[in-house]
Amino acid sequence: MATLFTNPNVSATHTTHISSFSSNNPIPSLFHLKPSIHSQKLVPFTAIICSLSRSRRPEYIPNRIPDPAYVRIFDTTLRDGEQSPGATMTSKEKLDVAHQLAKLGVDIIEAGFPAASKDDLEAVKMIAQEVGNIVDQDGHVPVICGLARCHKKDIDAAWEAVKHAKRPRIHTFIATSEIHMKYKLKKSKEEVIETARSMVRYARSLGCNDVEFSPEDAGRSDREFLYQILGEVIKAGATTLNIPDTVGYNVPDEFGQLIADIGANTPGIENVIISTHCQNDLGLSTANTLAGACAGARQVEVTINGIGERAGNASLEEVVMAFKCRGEQVLGGLYTGINTRHIVMASKMVEEYSGLHVQPHKAIVGANAFAHESGIHQDGMLKHKQTYEIISPEDIGLFRSNESGIVLGKLSGRHALKARLMELGYEVDGTELDDLFWRFKDVAEKKKITTDDDLIALVSDVVFQPQVVWKLGDVQVTCGTLGLSTATVRLIDADGEERVACSVGTGPVDSAYKAVDLIVKLPVTLLEYSMNAVTEGIDAIATTRVLIRGDNIHTSTKASTGETFHRTFSGTGAGMDIVVSSVRAYINALNKMLGFKNQSESKAHAGKSQI
Amino acid sequence: MATLFTNPNVSATHTTHISSFSSNNPIPSLFHLKPSIHSQKLVPFTAIICSLSRSRRPEYIPNRIPDPAYVRIFDTTLRDGEQSPGATMTSKEKLDVAHQLAKLGVDIIEAGFPAASKDDLEAVKMIAQEVGNIVDQDGHVPVICGLARCHKKDIDAAWEAVKHAKRPRIHTFIATSEIHMKYKLKKSKEEVIETARSMVRYARSLGCNDVEFSPEDAGRSDREFLYQILGEVIKAGATTLNIPDTVGYNVPDEFGQLIADIGANTPGIENVIISTHCQNDLGLSTANTLAGACAGARQVEVTINGIGERAGNASLEEVVMAFKCRGEQVLGGLYTGINTRHIVMASKMVEEYSGLHVQPHKAIVGANAFAHESGIHQDGMLKHKQTYEIISPEDIGLFRSNESGIVLGKLSGRHALKARLMELGYEVDGTELDDLFWRFKDVAEKKKITTDDDLIALVSDVVFQPQVVWKLGDVQVTCGTLGLSTATVRLIDADGEERVACSVGTGPVDSAYKAVDLIVKLPVTLLEYSMNAVTEGIDAIATTRVLIRGDNIHTSTKASTGETFHRTFSGTGAGMDIVVSSVRAYINALNKMLGFKNQSESKAHAGKSQI
Repeated sequence: MATLFTNPNVSATHTTHISSFSSNNPIPSLFHLKPSIHSQKLVPFTAIICSLSRSRRPEYIPNRIPDPAYVRIFDTTLRDGEQSPGATMTSKEKLDVAHQLAKLGVDIIEAGFPAASKDDLEAVKMIAQEVGNIVDQDGHVPVICGLARCHKKDIDAAWEAVKHAKRPRIHTFIATSEIHMKYKLKKSKEEVIETARSMVRYARSLGCNDVEFSPEDAGRSDREFLYQILGEVIKAGATTLNIPDTVGYNVPDEFGQLIADIGANTPGIENVIISTHCQNDLGLSTANTLAGACAGARQVEVTINGIGERAGNASLEEVVMAFKCRGEQVLGGLYTGINTRHIVMASKMVEEYSGLHVQPHKAIVGANAFAHESGIHQDGMLKHKQTYEIISPEDIGLFRSNESGIVLGKLSGRHALKARLMELGYEVDGTELDDLFWRFKDVAEKKKITTDDDLIALVSDVVFQPQVVWKLGDVQVTCGTLGLSTATVRLIDADGEERVACSVGTGPVDSAYKAVDLIVKLPVTLLEYSMNAVTEGIDAIATTRVLIRGDNIHTSTKASTGETFHRTFSGTGAGMDIVVSSVRAYINALNKMLGFKNQSESKAHAGKSQI
Repeated sequence: MATLFTNPNVSATHTTHISSFSSNNPIPSLFHLKPSIHSQKLVPFTAIICSLSRSRRPEYIPNRIPDPAYVRIFDTTLRDGEQSPGATMTSKEKLDVAHQLAKLGVDIIEAGFPAASKDDLEAVKMIAQEVGNIVDQDGHVPVICGLARCHKKDIDAAWEAVKHAKRPRIHTFIATSEIHMKYKLKKSKEEVIETARSMVRYARSLGCNDVEFSPEDAGRSDREFLYQILGEVIKAGATTLNIPDTVGYNVPDEFGQLIADIGANTPGIENVIISTHCQNDLGLSTANTLAGACAGARQVEVTINGIGERAGNASLEEVVMAFKCRGEQVLGGLYTGINTRHIVMASKMVEEYSGLHVQPHKAIVGANAFAHESGIHQDGMLKHKQTYEIISPEDIGLFRSNESGIVLGKLSGRHALKARLMELGYEVDGTELDDLFWRFKDVAEKKKITTDDDLIALVSDVVFQPQVVWKLGDVQVTCGTLGLSTATVRLIDADGEERVACSVGTGPVDSAYKAVDLIVKLPVTLLEYSMNAVTEGIDAIATTRVLIRGDNIHTSTKASTGETFHRTFSGTGAGMDIVVSSVRAYINALNKMLGFKNQSESKAHAGKSQI
């Protein structure tokens, strides 16, 4: 049996790097396999369980990577992900996600589309100032990137937001397909080339030496025109060229061929990095991204949990774990700089803030992905259980509280709480810690064991909330099969003034929400309502999430189409009483909406021509 | 512009079918692209919007497909999907899913693993008798398949269950990797070959002329041994050979190469159908399945919504829509016989019954997949909105009630309700219709407009429920921030006897569940609790789902490992009062568990040696 657990291929392929792309060296076949792998005995799985040690991350130079096998991870959760329906995050939430992305070791954080609204600009700026200046022990600091259409005003806004970072990047784009140029841009090919060239040059002229350019709708663009415009923006100073499969219809070899063709035919391509951006409409985004990398791309654009418009984007965790588990064997030795132990926390945070839940059978981060490890007892005759797992749970940071040995109870003090929160990745201090501590004591009084999941639910309820306009005082409800549910609520406004209202409704939530409406007097539509018990057991903490849409005043601009769209607002609330957590969630969503309204108004004062 | 909307490649490739696999004709490259496609202008998207007209489904012959471009869809939602944590379905639910799969036009329905328990055998038998005998207007009737390990008793049970179908199939498997043979089977290679050969022959001897064989853990098996055992089972009478990527670690070209190698090296392979079975651990199952088909497989094993153990299987809707949208262009002209208009209904039904929810950004069937069509108003400047969609919502059966023009209100009669339910795919009659009608009137009294989603929630609450042991009489609750939630419940047992209990708890659900526990007196653990408002608006119907695990007596046998595992039971409840729907869900889960317990006991009496 011993030979089953050694893998002669690994050391042989370890130093075999695909050479950096150049026009003299087109890669003929994607996912190219050495015949030797197939003619030999297959590699046993234990050999592919991911090892955490990796080569050092190469030095950051915008248009060149010293190690040809290194693939940069460009995370666009905060830009592409955040523009999906209902995923609007507060600035505080965005900052928190950016910190987590930095911990993950993401190379580039696309923090937003600063020209979309004042809210967006402020969030990107805050991330650039804070996260863009924290250098870790290995000297790594993430690039902070802002998106801009090929307009001077957009580029000014993006630069204004990102310039505070140690490594700022402007990402500008223009559509290059015939249908978009004709109907959306109303420009000829020559005008589009001139716009792209001059805007890339303008971005460089501001002092930004890291400029990414995307030909939107590249898949439908005329190939020769594509090579031409990409060649021109390289001459104008672009350092990364990103190739999007905008509608997610490519199959892997087809997308890889597109990347290979661009690599083979674009003048000057050897001086820049090629990037992929794959949508997931046919469920192929991860495979397409890997095919793009195998064909020469050295940056991949991804999002946590694969969120994004429609069916979302390639998901960071799937792409990264594929490189980690199979990179040496079948992906040309490619690797990334991601510290995968922070994946689970990043996934949970983005799920919570975006409100886009992850299905139980989602690869890598779904609740069932490691169900072998769950409480379900198995009398298995197989002693070699690990052979069913290609990734060990610890590699992605999946620890359960009953394994970590730290359990908080009602006698635990403020210090123990703070320490545990630090271990979970939350730095909480001051009045936030006070508020959290009293909520924690309240839960601990009622539950025997307070788990990490309980704490995380409380943190998101107490700490990461929008600016308070309305606050819940009390709520009292009667309901049941006899009907006539009745709720009474007491709300406190920003000035500390109390208001009380009661209402009947079709159920406890309906009656409580109607009572809130009587006080807040804001016309809204409830779009979604969902609830999950985050912890096992009948005395679980329930997290409620609602999604609301107000009247017509909450609009924003979509980067891709320039369309105006109605913002929707999500709110979450946690508690052991589902009616109370439902009311908290609703009030949080209302506060988020009221906050955005104010921003929108002040933006209008500041000058509407900015967009 | 006109030329943009014509596609010279489509007609050219329309008749270009990949020829059926033979050892003389190995396919050299996967997803093989004709160079002409890349050197020409790309195909515009409107050309790839799926057309619903397709070639006729070829005649069914177990080991041969008259049309070499036709790919059989083998759905294993009811076998592989149903064995995932918490996805246990009742026999009635399974039958309902099987009916929906038949409507979809699935070629083979794997209905279960009859040797697992008496419950499983009965469900497969019922499906074989009913769904396996309904011939549609085109003469199509799905094959009904039962799984069996390479044991006589398993094969007897499978045949006993499927033989009633017009087209019965037995699917038998044995592990062929060294580690499994040594530790699980404790057999030599020769013994494994002899077992496989004799069991395939035994299945044929029973009168079954459609026998599928899977070498479990094929990816880790020695290639030469694989060719040898597959050659032997072909000689013994196997008609389909299924190749599983058991741990979901392959990348597309690698898996395609495995299929191609088997096609090139297995003696007699030209007389059977090759099949794929791809797990999704790295998010690559759809791409791997397509690669397998391009390399010669003509059966693909999939599940609705991609459910299954761990990260699940390749999802039917993604694979089918990829063939439909890109088959002619880049997948060698391959096509399936699926009527895609039934996809949405199948997806919702499986989501509901399995309790495995679908994330909003799931490809094809996620709530956001067609968000362009949602209520969110977009002032888009683009008139050509359809160019962003590669699939039109109608193609997968996505209609919204406000588009269908049929809205039910409180004055609608029983006939209108029944008619609408028929259109939605539910045939409800007799006392079930009566029950449903009164629940519907109750909702219609309170809501202005009753949508299709409301009806579907009610149907699943009223119709598809386990045998009633306990029934909810009434529940009354008070709760709120003041604490001391108190609930009183009145339950009615099978004999009509009423019991009342009250309890306090940490919230309304906790107190109500504790009151139920005081009556039912059954030790259970609540594993999951979740709730969704299925319809928009503040007066929505909420569907609650709980997952419980009882004590040690509810065990079952897992096909793949022979392990005994603890069954978990889900229950759902719908209602406008979230507390009431929560109590309904809990009682339903308890009833399901009580039902299974009885089955398990009678099975034990019938003879334990069966497994």
